[in-house]
Amino acid sequence: MAAKLTQKAFGWAAADSSGVFSPFHFSRRENGADDVTIKILYCGICHSDLHIARNEWGFTRYPIVPGHEIVGLVTKTGDNVRKFKVGDTVGVGVIVGSCRKCHICEQNLENYCPKIIFTYNSTDKDGTRTNGGYSDIIVVDQHFVLRFPDNLPSDSGAPLLCAGITVYSPMKYYGMSSEPGKHLGVAGLGGLGHVAVKFGKAFGLKVTVISRSPRKEDEAINKLGADAFLVSSDPAQMKAAIGTMDFIIDTIAAVHPLAPLLDLLKLNGKLVTVGLPDKPLELPIFPLVLGRKLVGGSDIGGIKETQEMLDFCGKHGITADIELISMDYVNTAMERLAKSDVKYRFVIDVGNSFANL
Amino acid sequence: MAAKLTQKAFGWAAADSSGVFSPFHFSRRENGADDVTIKILYCGICHSDLHIARNEWGFTRYPIVPGHEIVGLVTKTGDNVRKFKVGDTVGVGVIVGSCRKCHICEQNLENYCPKIIFTYNSTDKDGTRTNGGYSDIIVVDQHFVLRFPDNLPSDSGAPLLCAGITVYSPMKYYGMSSEPGKHLGVAGLGGLGHVAVKFGKAFGLKVTVISRSPRKEDEAINKLGADAFLVSSDPAQMKAAIGTMDFIIDTIAAVHPLAPLLDLLKLNGKLVTVGLPDKPLELPIFPLVLGRKLVGGSDIGGIKETQEMLDFCGKHGITADIELISMDYVNTAMERLAKSDVKYRFVIDVGNSFANL
Repeated sequence: MAAKLTQKAFGWAAADSSGVFSPFHFSRRENGADDVTIKILYCGICHSDLHIARNEWGFTRYPIVPGHEIVGLVTKTGDNVRKFKVGDTVGVGVIVGSCRKCHICEQNLENYCPKIIFTYNSTDKDGTRTNGGYSDIIVVDQHFVLRFPDNLPSDSGAPLLCAGITVYSPMKYYGMSSEPGKHLGVAGLGGLGHVAVKFGKAFGLKVTVISRSPRKEDEAINKLGADAFLVSSDPAQMKAAIGTMDFIIDTIAAVHPLAPLLDLLKLNGKLVTVGLPDKPLELPIFPLVLGRKLVGGSDIGGIKETQEMLDFCGKHGITADIELISMDYVNTAMERLAKSDVKYRFVIDVGNSFANL
Repeated sequence: MAAKLTQKAFGWAAADSSGVFSPFHFSRRENGADDVTIKILYCGICHSDLHIARNEWGFTRYPIVPGHEIVGLVTKTGDNVRKFKVGDTVGVGVIVGSCRKCHICEQNLENYCPKIIFTYNSTDKDGTRTNGGYSDIIVVDQHFVLRFPDNLPSDSGAPLLCAGITVYSPMKYYGMSSEPGKHLGVAGLGGLGHVAVKFGKAFGLKVTVISRSPRKEDEAINKLGADAFLVSSDPAQMKAAIGTMDFIIDTIAAVHPLAPLLDLLKLNGKLVTVGLPDKPLELPIFPLVLGRKLVGGSDIGGIKETQEMLDFCGKHGITADIELISMDYVNTAMERLAKSDVKYRFVIDVGNSFANL
């Protein structure tokens, strides 16, 4: 059944693979019985937004309104909605739908459901295309809407909906959250990496940032709270750190060698990749076998765990470090993001950008 | 302190990288207070023996007597030895020494101790070189000697000391032994793979053999007890099996693609490699991330776990399928092994080969 597209919406969309954004009028579906309509206040800019805007993964359907780190206020609730009321501050992350019936959904792992519906660039249950948070309103099934903790800032909290859960979930799954005192390496200090540092500290781990750029050291330690900094381009430093880490979260999205990271791990060490290099990486087998090490992956997180993560962040005061921008800065922001010129996440001040429209 | 080499020994050694074996007289150390001297009855031929004999890993010290799947009878015990008495049937596997003090040894993981002493081609504590089981006697510290269960045949049980523990240990570590009903793929049906099938069935798993050779199907199912057989060179079969397995034990020692194996795994699936390809493998990251899969390794096992494995095999009647050969057949056996022309392990009848000498 196709829902009626009765709610007028306004956002910024990319129209082709140039990835250039411009103002875009479109419609959202009528608020259904299980739906929540949300007035969007803030939306983080994830690197995926850039990939999709420029069709770098090859499956973008234009025009596309990206954005899946959304915080806003509930303006309508459907008849079946008990979880939220008008005026609540809520979050929407990477997913807005799944089958809700399979054994994967039953395990609260909607993020791995084969029928996952992404917040943008997916086909929704009603056959329309989903559009994300670079827009004034969004309509989402209540199951996929998160309660946003009162004490969490809506702007710097927004990136937790993707960057946050993407590192939190594997830290839980691979046992990093229950081993205080163990040593975590965070490879790559961007949107994901800088949040991983904060979770690592909150879990009681010793955290070392692994980065090519020595200039990031001061901030990693003095601002983000890392315990140590390892310059991956310095062979002497890398050699001295061999066999010292229990875990590594690898947030590097580009093709990169795994061998030097595997060497940093102790016996039974775990290297978890959350980046998505578009080509295979070289995997040396000797270190895996001789050190009983593993390389694993993880992709965002389920709704239940995302809520748990937000609540954890509220409790521990964890937010992203952001640069707040206006909607009309988005094209410049994308250019800067492509050069990793941001500390550490752009967040669009959607509410104020659209206030006068 | 260098122990005196007072015990005359006789075996077959390779003298150079031709890997050709010929009779060799040498000496073993005097039986020390913690030592057990063993009259060797049987010794399995592991592919490592071939690699070392031909210096394929580049660190062989000639002349070399290989062999680390040893079963024999105790002939002498040192003053401190309480665990064994003369006449006991015992086993010796891949390792005969470790530091016994580090936190890795304290966890009964001597197999990962940085000061590990291998049964052959290592430097022993007394500075002499270790030599393995292609010989009449061996002297080993009691800690590294295994009790051989009474009901386990000494000949077909010998390969358990390396091939057996090499697959048993990761099956325990990666959770395959405590999940009856789950689906295990065994990639490669050689010395390691055929034992992995038997452990898989003993652990209550559904076991599918994954092999390039359709001709191995009948034996895999009707002799080894596998539940199914998947021809990896058949694209239609491989496609139909996508997402059906919980675990894969990858025993393939040659360079091979991981992507088709990763595709066979379900969400949260684990691919564990115990082979040692000499070049890195290609690791596609998307299946790891999107399916929260992992690739892990494992190397033999500690002494405590090796004993547990032998006892498990005694209880469950698990042995290797072997071809028993005489010592003077070893050069032919090595040629056949290089072509994988053995079902599934050669075992040298050491005791009878040397009986008339």
